[in-house]
Amino acid sequence: MPADALSSALLPAGLHDVLPSEAAHEAAAVERLLAEFAAQGYRRVDPPLVEFEENLLSGPGAAMSKQTFRLMDPHSQRMMAVRADITPQIARIATTRLKNEARPLRLCYAGQVLRVKGSQLRPERQFTQVGVELIGALEAEADAEVVLLAVQALTAIGVPHLSVDLCVPTMVSRICAGLGLGEDEIRQLRAALDRKDAAAVAAVGGPAGALLESLMSASGPADRAMQALAALPLPEGAEKDRRRLTDTLALLHAAMPDLTVTVDLVEHRGFEYQTGLSFTLFSRAAGELGQGGRYRAGAQGDAKGDGRGEPATGFTLYMDTLLRAVPPAKAPGRVYVPHGTGWDTARRLRADGWVTVAGLAPVADAAAEAKRLQCGHWLAGGDVKPVG
Amino acid sequence: MPADALSSALLPAGLHDVLPSEAAHEAAAVERLLAEFAAQGYRRVDPPLVEFEENLLSGPGAAMSKQTFRLMDPHSQRMMAVRADITPQIARIATTRLKNEARPLRLCYAGQVLRVKGSQLRPERQFTQVGVELIGALEAEADAEVVLLAVQALTAIGVPHLSVDLCVPTMVSRICAGLGLGEDEIRQLRAALDRKDAAAVAAVGGPAGALLESLMSASGPADRAMQALAALPLPEGAEKDRRRLTDTLALLHAAMPDLTVTVDLVEHRGFEYQTGLSFTLFSRAAGELGQGGRYRAGAQGDAKGDGRGEPATGFTLYMDTLLRAVPPAKAPGRVYVPHGTGWDTARRLRADGWVTVAGLAPVADAAAEAKRLQCGHWLAGGDVKPVG
Repeated sequence: MPADALSSALLPAGLHDVLPSEAAHEAAAVERLLAEFAAQGYRRVDPPLVEFEENLLSGPGAAMSKQTFRLMDPHSQRMMAVRADITPQIARIATTRLKNEARPLRLCYAGQVLRVKGSQLRPERQFTQVGVELIGALEAEADAEVVLLAVQALTAIGVPHLSVDLCVPTMVSRICAGLGLGEDEIRQLRAALDRKDAAAVAAVGGPAGALLESLMSASGPADRAMQALAALPLPEGAEKDRRRLTDTLALLHAAMPDLTVTVDLVEHRGFEYQTGLSFTLFSRAAGELGQGGRYRAGAQGDAKGDGRGEPATGFTLYMDTLLRAVPPAKAPGRVYVPHGTGWDTARRLRADGWVTVAGLAPVADAAAEAKRLQCGHWLAGGDVKPVG
Repeated sequence: MPADALSSALLPAGLHDVLPSEAAHEAAAVERLLAEFAAQGYRRVDPPLVEFEENLLSGPGAAMSKQTFRLMDPHSQRMMAVRADITPQIARIATTRLKNEARPLRLCYAGQVLRVKGSQLRPERQFTQVGVELIGALEAEADAEVVLLAVQALTAIGVPHLSVDLCVPTMVSRICAGLGLGEDEIRQLRAALDRKDAAAVAAVGGPAGALLESLMSASGPADRAMQALAALPLPEGAEKDRRRLTDTLALLHAAMPDLTVTVDLVEHRGFEYQTGLSFTLFSRAAGELGQGGRYRAGAQGDAKGDGRGEPATGFTLYMDTLLRAVPPAKAPGRVYVPHGTGWDTARRLRADGWVTVAGLAPVADAAAEAKRLQCGHWLAGGDVKPVG
């Protein structure tokens, strides 16, 4: 069996060894993202891999229940769960240990999550989640800040062709509620909107059918979408969502006039726990890189959390997809340092930016040995020389 | 209940939230350590948190069996284990996926491990393990390289008063075997040596009793220990251990003449799986920081691995104890940037090394708001001013 097939047989499906160069690439990208977050005042926290099941899976965490591995804790005799998502942990920290810290509270994190099953789009069962949470701020400025921060950080690590898709997953339900639709009608409408089935949406009839059809067809580039949206008569609740969208777009445009922004006026899939302005980050090179949006932090036991807990927004990036869009940094040159070279000589080379690879025994042909050890250079009589 | 007590009640014993400043401190130290490893040609690998139980717990991994959480994999219907130690995973990668890479193979890693129980000395059940493995090299130069690398990396992150304690855990058994002692006698001797009970060691009598008593009393500062050791008549197997100790000490002294090195000639606890020269890293400020030594990589199913697998050495650092010895880096200054400040203005401040904390709404007293948000400075009319 070739080494690669052997290795995959050794590991459970969806779990991988990250090998040299790829592991360094990921670590460097994660640290750079966190440095960008830190530069805007987001402070790092690091919750544990495992918590009591009842805490990890309450409130918004409940969504991940089927994706979560359980462990029995022999100490407390209670069930623990391995985190499948870090976001609920950050909300827990904000609303318990850091509940007396000044608001808005800016936190960031990076860590591994484990899931029971991979999906078709993401077969991996373990991946690195990196993100921020901005807790205790209601303003559109907060919505804009996290979008801009995501764009800034992704740009810093070299993600090309970045675009942001904004949505307000609450808008459709508020329109339906405002127009007095029943539960069955809403469910049918949602399904039709998810399929982007204009005919089925129109078939619902009445003012809701017409309105939602307009929302659907207006989705696209931000300017055009907002122009169309401005002309539509919205019930009161949805009017608030429209205003937030308008304000956030204005702030994004003022900060980054060249940013590609689209608006989806009927999207809600993947945002079941969002309570307001939400967004997805895309790169033409790699697809979906992450998503974020408003929720209520610390509204435990109440999945949607409307009106309870603290207002919060944030985003999560998935490093596996993201790294496909990022060119690895140029690795520093490796220089073979023959056996017997002094420690200080090697140290000076490292101070000059070289990676030194020490010969552990004398060899007849140092240049050949350098090549064998994947060094592009070797040290010959005090000089760094390229290998043949 | 105060926030802290509430939080500890929320988490299982031995598991903790790492809060701001501490989390950044740890992350910075880990990245710096890995940068030092990389500068000497150690390439990062990142094995998964979870593997099949039978792979993770075979060979040297078997030692951690009781400390390891198990999970049922619904995909394969096989038992998986959450890693309690990363070292066996690195050995697995070296001897499977990287078996065709040139030797010596230099690998490094950083990651979380989870254990069923904390110990009295280390109540934590989750911690960050950071280390290197040097695989496929038999030379004393390899032993010296990993010790020097550990010292170099720990010094780089600011660990003060560093010392290294060398031992050869095989020496006592080789002496006992060479002098024909029986199993019971060896067990009694080991127990007496572990207690540092000179009288009980001498009571074993014969040449072994005298020799081991001399070894025990000779342990201490390297110069004195080696002088005493040189004068002792050793059986053949142990003679090899003495030579390795002498050669390694000479290499350490040549590279770092000021390094504090002690030698323990009878130590073996904590080195049950080591097959040759081993070491413990200490700081007066924090105690034991990590340990390392020789083993056989890929000798699966054979706990001691003598003569099978590849010769290997390496070390593991425990970040929890280590960070107690390291002063945190000075945090960059935080400047409050009032509402309405342009994106480019804030970006320029960040380029100058400031952390910017944006005001999300207008406030009457920007200096007071800066203070409330733990900023030492605020932006007033284009100038960064200290708060009050």
